[in-house]
Amino acid sequence: MQVLITGGAGFLGAKLAHALLQKGTLADAGGRQQAITRITLLDRSAATGFDDARIATAEGDVSDPAVIAAHLTPAVSSVFHLAAVVSGEAEADFDLGMRINLDATRLLLEQARRNGNAPRIVFTSSVAVFGGELPDPVLDSTAPTPQGSYGAQKVMGELMVADYSRKGFVDGRSVRLPTITVRPGKANKAASSFASGIIREPLNGVVAVCPVPPETRVWAMSPRSAVKNLVQAHEVTRDALGTGGAINLPGLATTAGDMVAALARVAGPEVAQRVQWQKDEAITRLVGSWPGRFVTPRAERLGFVGDADFDSVVQAYIDDELAR
Amino acid sequence: MQVLITGGAGFLGAKLAHALLQKGTLADAGGRQQAITRITLLDRSAATGFDDARIATAEGDVSDPAVIAAHLTPAVSSVFHLAAVVSGEAEADFDLGMRINLDATRLLLEQARRNGNAPRIVFTSSVAVFGGELPDPVLDSTAPTPQGSYGAQKVMGELMVADYSRKGFVDGRSVRLPTITVRPGKANKAASSFASGIIREPLNGVVAVCPVPPETRVWAMSPRSAVKNLVQAHEVTRDALGTGGAINLPGLATTAGDMVAALARVAGPEVAQRVQWQKDEAITRLVGSWPGRFVTPRAERLGFVGDADFDSVVQAYIDDELAR
Repeated sequence: MQVLITGGAGFLGAKLAHALLQKGTLADAGGRQQAITRITLLDRSAATGFDDARIATAEGDVSDPAVIAAHLTPAVSSVFHLAAVVSGEAEADFDLGMRINLDATRLLLEQARRNGNAPRIVFTSSVAVFGGELPDPVLDSTAPTPQGSYGAQKVMGELMVADYSRKGFVDGRSVRLPTITVRPGKANKAASSFASGIIREPLNGVVAVCPVPPETRVWAMSPRSAVKNLVQAHEVTRDALGTGGAINLPGLATTAGDMVAALARVAGPEVAQRVQWQKDEAITRLVGSWPGRFVTPRAERLGFVGDADFDSVVQAYIDDELAR
Repeated sequence: MQVLITGGAGFLGAKLAHALLQKGTLADAGGRQQAITRITLLDRSAATGFDDARIATAEGDVSDPAVIAAHLTPAVSSVFHLAAVVSGEAEADFDLGMRINLDATRLLLEQARRNGNAPRIVFTSSVAVFGGELPDPVLDSTAPTPQGSYGAQKVMGELMVADYSRKGFVDGRSVRLPTITVRPGKANKAASSFASGIIREPLNGVVAVCPVPPETRVWAMSPRSAVKNLVQAHEVTRDALGTGGAINLPGLATTAGDMVAALARVAGPEVAQRVQWQKDEAITRLVGSWPGRFVTPRAERLGFVGDADFDSVVQAYIDDELAR
């Protein structure tokens, strides 16, 4: 079976690809595990760092119909749609966000519909679909009322995935990722970028400026759990999904201050002291509009998993990224 | 001030136009009432039956950018976007529904953004955004999980209206209309068409076939209340709307059986006997996926109104449509 990962050169796409290579199989439409023969990693620039004959890298713009037609062929039976313009960027460039987060998702669904093989499509949505006045905790039945363009575009994507699935054009499933931390590499334009920076930079001996106050709540998930959950989103049966829409994943309720306290416990206070608190109003407003706490019985029933505590999230980052 | 009504030749658009002509004014961006100098009724075929110099009729496809550019000029400060492909038709022709219910709404918002005058836009959404497993009653905070393409397209429209408003491109407000009954004229392709037919046809001496069982719940609203609420949606201040999304309007919780019982009370049992019950599985499934009962504290706080009972809804139809 052939797999397509959009955003496949991103850190999550690459981790997912490694996990799929190791797992070796994915469920087909009938629920039977089939050997993965090819994983195409599509992104703006080609993915690197793979040494496996099953990996194909492809460069292209996901909002270009020719690119989608070239890589989402009828031979592809599983898609992980990770490509996105992140929250801060979608807020700064409205048209870019609409093009990549909304139009490209529709393009992908339309191509799948034309292909006629109803591929399984995992769509990565986000906790950023929630905002404004919200129940605390947020429930599985809580209405998304996004207070940012990224969140609005993601909900629209979820709705399309659900309706194309109901019509039988695709077999889609949407999961709302919590804030992923700790991301390796450089800061990005996501408003939530700090949630990785305040752990990653101090561990690398660099000062990190935290743009939100310590009491800022974060609904967090480690990359390890995120990858597990993306695979699970693919594997869960259509029947188990029922008529519900996107799935709120089980995150870890923490705060910026508690995250730095965990860093101090795991890596020492001298490391944690590299975090400087300097409030950015725009980022604080956007991040503050996202909910800090959920209850997620539906996800738990469907086999999705969260992290036990933030100390283990910090330790996993050290093991996965720094021990090499 | 100039007003644009899309779907202006439809029965609700025409009733709204008459109400606006009689009211004579609408709130401007600063909340001051301004005289309405022109109401353009845009529809696939020109509206008829108006004899007022303030009315302009226009023929055109709302999904055609040239049509929208011609009629949504910077001189237009208020828009009522009523044009839509109804539920049954959107389900039968997916692409038509996407084009009219989603793409045309985006086109309208984009034209308004280009115009640069942030017009007030009232977007008519629907109870059909809800479906599947739902709390009973549905709450203001309940997530829409549409089980039909019409509902999915309407939620996407709501999300765009909300985000374009948050960005300051437009001043949009979305209201979710209950099932409007009693509609005058002919049956249409809405799955809810029966809710008017079982009252209208018997009153006209014609047999009506009801495609859903008597116990089928309907969240109903009279055309009179719908028009009042569309005007109220325009008049309510931006501040009062807050960060919430589309507004669930206060409908009347009834059933197909109770509606026919009301008809018997108001018009006599011999009239009500003209209703024949003949179940259509597809319509019953779609209508049955919509919720029958809401609590709507937000709408009530914002000054929206419902109907007292279904007897008065039947009587209002007789007074407005048959007494002429």
